Amino acid sequence: MNTIISIEPGTPMESQVRPGHNRWHPDIPPVASAGRGDRIRVECPDMFDWQIRNDDDASDIAELNMNRAHMVCGPIAVEGARPGDLLVVDILDVGPLPGRAWGYTGIMRPEMGGMLADYFSEPRKAIWDFEGIYATSRHIPGVRFAGQVHPGILAVAPSHELLDRWNSREQALIQTDPDRVPELATVPDPDGAVLGSLSGAEFERVASEAARTLPGRENGGNCDIKNLSRGSRLYMPVFVEGANLSVGDLHFSLADGEATVCGAIEMAGYLDLRVDVIPNGMDVYGTSNPFFVTGPINVEYTERIVFEGFSIEADGTQGFLDAHASYRQACLEAIRYLSRFGYSEEQAYVILSTAPIETRINALGGKPNAVCTMAVPTGIFEGDIKPQSRSNWGTPASVDLASVVAAG
Amino acid sequence: MNTIISIEPGTPMESQVRPGHNRWHPDIPPVASAGRGDRIRVECPDMFDWQIRNDDDASDIAELNMNRAHMVCGPIAVEGARPGDLLVVDILDVGPLPGRAWGYTGIMRPEMGGMLADYFSEPRKAIWDFEGIYATSRHIPGVRFAGQVHPGILAVAPSHELLDRWNSREQALIQTDPDRVPELATVPDPDGAVLGSLSGAEFERVASEAARTLPGRENGGNCDIKNLSRGSRLYMPVFVEGANLSVGDLHFSLADGEATVCGAIEMAGYLDLRVDVIPNGMDVYGTSNPFFVTGPINVEYTERIVFEGFSIEADGTQGFLDAHASYRQACLEAIRYLSRFGYSEEQAYVILSTAPIETRINALGGKPNAVCTMAVPTGIFEGDIKPQSRSNWGTPASVDLASVVAAG
Amino acid sequence: MNTIISIEPGTPMESQVRPGHNRWHPDIPPVASAGRGDRIRVECPDMFDWQIRNDDDASDIAELNMNRAHMVCGPIAVEGARPGDLLVVDILDVGPLPGRAWGYTGIMRPEMGGMLADYFSEPRKAIWDFEGIYATSRHIPGVRFAGQVHPGILAVAPSHELLDRWNSREQALIQTDPDRVPELATVPDPDGAVLGSLSGAEFERVASEAARTLPGRENGGNCDIKNLSRGSRLYMPVFVEGANLSVGDLHFSLADGEATVCGAIEMAGYLDLRVDVIPNGMDVYGTSNPFFVTGPINVEYTERIVFEGFSIEADGTQGFLDAHASYRQACLEAIRYLSRFGYSEEQAYVILSTAPIETRINALGGKPNAVCTMAVPTGIFEGDIKPQSRSNWGTPASVDLASVVAAG
Amino acid sequence: MNTIISIEPGTPMESQVRPGHNRWHPDIPPVASAGRGDRIRVECPDMFDWQIRNDDDASDIAELNMNRAHMVCGPIAVEGARPGDLLVVDILDVGPLPGRAWGYTGIMRPEMGGMLADYFSEPRKAIWDFEGIYATSRHIPGVRFAGQVHPGILAVAPSHELLDRWNSREQALIQTDPDRVPELATVPDPDGAVLGSLSGAEFERVASEAARTLPGRENGGNCDIKNLSRGSRLYMPVFVEGANLSVGDLHFSLADGEATVCGAIEMAGYLDLRVDVIPNGMDVYGTSNPFFVTGPINVEYTERIVFEGFSIEADGTQGFLDAHASYRQACLEAIRYLSRFGYSEEQAYVILSTAPIETRINALGGKPNAVCTMAVPTGIFEGDIKPQSRSNWGTPASVDLASVVAAG
Repeated sequence: MNTIISIEPGTPMESQVRPGHNRWHPDIPPVASAGRGDRIRVECPDMFDWQIRNDDDASDIAELNMNRAHMVCGPIAVEGARPGDLLVVDILDVGPLPGRAWGYTGIMRPEMGGMLADYFSEPRKAIWDFEGIYATSRHIPGVRFAGQVHPGILAVAPSHELLDRWNSREQALIQTDPDRVPELATVPDPDGAVLGSLSGAEFERVASEAARTLPGRENGGNCDIKNLSRGSRLYMPVFVEGANLSVGDLHFSLADGEATVCGAIEMAGYLDLRVDVIPNGMDVYGTSNPFFVTGPINVEYTERIVFEGFSIEADGTQGFLDAHASYRQACLEAIRYLSRFGYSEEQAYVILSTAPIETRINALGGKPNAVCTMAVPTGIFEGDIKPQSRSNWGTPASVDLASVVAAG
Repeated sequence: MNTIISIEPGTPMESQVRPGHNRWHPDIPPVASAGRGDRIRVECPDMFDWQIRNDDDASDIAELNMNRAHMVCGPIAVEGARPGDLLVVDILDVGPLPGRAWGYTGIMRPEMGGMLADYFSEPRKAIWDFEGIYATSRHIPGVRFAGQVHPGILAVAPSHELLDRWNSREQALIQTDPDRVPELATVPDPDGAVLGSLSGAEFERVASEAARTLPGRENGGNCDIKNLSRGSRLYMPVFVEGANLSVGDLHFSLADGEATVCGAIEMAGYLDLRVDVIPNGMDVYGTSNPFFVTGPINVEYTERIVFEGFSIEADGTQGFLDAHASYRQACLEAIRYLSRFGYSEEQAYVILSTAPIETRINALGGKPNAVCTMAVPTGIFEGDIKPQSRSNWGTPASVDLASVVAAG
Repeated sequence: MNTIISIEPGTPMESQVRPGHNRWHPDIPPVASAGRGDRIRVECPDMFDWQIRNDDDASDIAELNMNRAHMVCGPIAVEGARPGDLLVVDILDVGPLPGRAWGYTGIMRPEMGGMLADYFSEPRKAIWDFEGIYATSRHIPGVRFAGQVHPGILAVAPSHELLDRWNSREQALIQTDPDRVPELATVPDPDGAVLGSLSGAEFERVASEAARTLPGRENGGNCDIKNLSRGSRLYMPVFVEGANLSVGDLHFSLADGEATVCGAIEMAGYLDLRVDVIPNGMDVYGTSNPFFVTGPINVEYTERIVFEGFSIEADGTQGFLDAHASYRQACLEAIRYLSRFGYSEEQAYVILSTAPIETRINALGGKPNAVCTMAVPTGIFEGDIKPQSRSNWGTPASVDLASVVAAG
Repeated sequence: MNTIISIEPGTPMESQVRPGHNRWHPDIPPVASAGRGDRIRVECPDMFDWQIRNDDDASDIAELNMNRAHMVCGPIAVEGARPGDLLVVDILDVGPLPGRAWGYTGIMRPEMGGMLADYFSEPRKAIWDFEGIYATSRHIPGVRFAGQVHPGILAVAPSHELLDRWNSREQALIQTDPDRVPELATVPDPDGAVLGSLSGAEFERVASEAARTLPGRENGGNCDIKNLSRGSRLYMPVFVEGANLSVGDLHFSLADGEATVCGAIEMAGYLDLRVDVIPNGMDVYGTSNPFFVTGPINVEYTERIVFEGFSIEADGTQGFLDAHASYRQACLEAIRYLSRFGYSEEQAYVILSTAPIETRINALGGKPNAVCTMAVPTGIFEGDIKPQSRSNWGTPASVDLASVVAAG
């Protein structure tokens, strides 16, 4: 595996040898390149670029500079990739940096958003220790799980045309409620921008146009799909010459839905990829968004407790086929349930955001309620968290088979 | 297994020996009862109470009486169940009625709603033949899959208080856009109501108050959760003495999300249950909604093509963390993709609504886009539907290991 | 599904309308036929043709007539099948007969053999009740599992040439130790033979030549492969015109290895098949034995306790790469382990013979010991049967995340 | 993770800083120690201690010194472990050494044994490249699979009493056929022995008594169990103070059964463990052999072609419940089948020895034939290797759902 981008732990992204970026723009120049069929390694900082410490004090979360989020490595120009092609990216491996076998999960300040920001208003931090395939936390005893390790961000550069489309549609959304706090979307903002090697006037221009990294979009971006993991093959639309692939936001584990804004187990690490190109693939397969084929290694916890949610707000207000509200209700049900087993509500919230939870949209056909479910694996808890219904299986083993007597 | 409710195929529900119902109300009297630990069989008509024929003509879908939908069997009074308890329901088995090894999926008239009603405005019907664990359709050649057979509806009666809450919150929703067509929610409506053995003035009163069956709610109801299947154990809040369990809407298979309104493979069949009670369980476990523990038999198609969607409407409008919109976009991506392999768009729509598709809420942390995915199993298609990237694995097997010569 | 062979419960096979057989011979005439692509249902008695009762008395096991074992239904002539073809058999469904939701497992008299016949010399019987997908036994409380329902026997008729080969090679084996009790193989024996409609001199001739049904052979036969289950597609060599398919020995569940001779959960039931033919398939695919492709519905218990065995006899004698001895040692280890959790050794033996156990040949490269393992699912036991190592995961959840204080 | 034993690649074991060993004996002194609950890393050479090169020439296999096989690292003394305890070993992670992302599989000289040594008499070598979770080989194009990475050897030191028992039972086996070539078991042999820091007379004594490493035994040893992999928890009997744990023989992948003697993908690598002790565990749980609980990350290829074998030798001789012969026959069936798809027989043999194949003992109840199966995943091959039966699923998708016309 050829390491084409290495990083110096603790050094800010703009000071790395091959500086990355935290905005999307076609004019950020590539810092590395790869040929078709190449196997490459990229090292990545954690999503907050070393702002979070491995300690028991959440003041770093409280004082976080959110403009330094989603720092990604690249762009990497892929030889032969042209607009209209599909870029094929095999995720061969992902893991923590040697000597940094830990990660973190935060509960953010409420103004940063977060699905349950109304309930959890104090900044909090959980540190996770990686023991090979497992994560444990000294802040959440009694739980241990295997991580579905994956990159939160795999993205290509947008074209100018696509960037313009993003900016205009997101600006239009903001205009529907321009005074909302927090705002409905994050607009281009030069403050905190890191744009690789750009500087001077070109930096200013690009920084004022470049899209923010918070949402996933047609170029991939911050998709946070836990099953887009080791062994997956990703197909991404190509919008510029060379595709300009950037990657980062590595997660040791993540629950479907990512209940908290910083809800994964965030880590610095390495990512091994193989890149290839399907010429004219967007037209051949009729796709405008990334799609992927799953791999054969997954975290398997087959027995699960599944919590159901409907489109009802906490104050009883009825929503209309609102899957987000249904997920929130299911999550609150799960938090209350886990609190009966000795976990604090904040601990439960972090578990439901980080562990290998499956969150599904089950039914959108029954207006006004969307039905969503959160499936929590029972095998990640030290004790048995299933409800006890003692009459179910009969009394414990006490009948000797010998009482079934053979006739003389 | 003791059959406590049997049905006569083809006979309307109100004329069955133990007539069921299609509204939720505490005053619908039980038609059967069961003790704690009892194993019971209940037979059920299909969700449209025999309105749909096994033929190649969708006029029955076009002329459907939607007020005769979700006809359920029961209520069944469970001995000893009291408000505040949890009713424990083991789903032991589900299957089609003997001699009726077929089901149907409809694309409804647009005024009935449906996630992609804008795209698919013509009534359509696909008939599925059940071959043991598999379903095939003469209307959609080239696809075959095993069904995760399950009941769409498992529900208990609401209390009067809960029913009032439903009616007021849903009425309040309608008032936010009272002229909308179709309406935002379905209000109590005596037209087409079937209420078991009720008649006369009592029928009139209950029919004018009873909640409609379309949405899932705190009592369970039309949850359409495909993994709440054979082998699962369901825990339901109890709101009235005896719990008053009703069941129906059996599905041979269903995709997470149920893209079309009548999106499952609907069938008439039997349901084998075991019932039990956890006294005071709602308080003990802190739950207000049903929840369940999964069983050990599931449909396993591990390799999947996963389509991603973001909160963007088809006209390019940006939504705000709208998981419904993201699911819709992923679904449209999948339809376009499958159409490249010879399926019509309507066929693809039905496949994506019925096959064992996993639909996930992946990330809600990246405003304004919710990220949702539809994971389509590759193993259900006759041919290989993965993208071909010929340079991936090297050339076909042609190197003889003997060319690795041992030294003389 | 077209029922081409139905049976009358309780009636001996020779008195059924379409009598089956319990020997293999090319001259047993077909009792039914099927075309290519046909879907057919066959009903089958249990393997001992109704000799075993649903009660608490093992005298039926003690007095069993073993010459009435493996009573199969058929032969079924498949249109167009010719020697050298492959017969394709889809197993669409298998289940118990309606109204007979129970099965049995026996520990046989020692002279009948059985892997641990030295240890378990008393005839015993366990009755299992089927509750939908689950089996429980009043004779073995504290265990419940889903069954991988399957036919123990799917077989085609041998040619005369193949039958001769079987008889001569098995006779040669017996001659290596002709006085052994029990004998090394079971020779043709007219006593107890049932040969469909044959009678008179033809019956006598065929009965004296026909192979016994105990072992699996090139024609399939008593293979007892639990994963050759619902949804599988089986490919069988064809040796005679019409293939002459016979089926039976249905099992609700079986452990890999079938520790006891009558080690499955034996039941009477139905079997739904689809048949087809690949002309000249034996040559095309180079195979002489049956092979199959697995289906998508399996019993999933991912967490397992795995017991290891080596080729050492119970008296300490060293064997040579003897996988059978290794399996036996692993089985004895598992029995001792389970006995620590309250199961009697006989109960443990029956569990290890019937539950969804995976038994593997792990390594044959390390002479003189073959390494075999038995993987016992933890989820089938009422209690937790994993060893407790209390220091492993830290103390129970007791640390409040709030103690991780945000700075003022 | 604390690296308690590191190795210098390419340096022979006896010259490492903490030299390991290739014999079992209680008097080999520990080279490292660990406390209860410690997490430790151990680096290991490949099983042949650097004798094999990454090239296209099998002369290294042909000239191999088999007395330098199974070089393991340790012993590691575990604080507090006493005879009669169970040593608890969590396998946290396993992987190749950085910069050595390759492994090898050999077909050995026939005198070294090997299940199919009669068929494959020429030394051969396949080199595998590791691409993250996947292995590919330039010597076997058209196949790629994820590895279930695991250590082939996890073992504790035997007591003097246990060692004596091994030596006497294995010697007795040899005496049953003392002139056999190759011999039935490998006796203590000072030639090539490496015994850690021992030297002089003590080396001579121990070397003449110490057991060879080829077979697995009660102390663990060369068990080659592919599912004893990342995430598993192993329980081992303790025979000496400190347990004296030794590890090695790391495999990137291995088929159940290990058809060739050097049948895994052998590699040098690291192993991360956590150790603990259950006092008096052997008596508490009644076990004399190692056993383990599986972990939640496994290689999942659910669709498999399963080949059946019976206890018949290649020359037609009938064996008696010989599972080894059954496995061999299933393996030969699979080789012939794969050869129809363009693989050479040697390539097929290596695939069946290295890929994630499941090999089961299915039935031992049907004398004289044991039934064993090899389950080959279809997803590891570039093309579709399932038999084609074109009439199965109907014609390709060509019916437009629109032809199902809604009534006017």
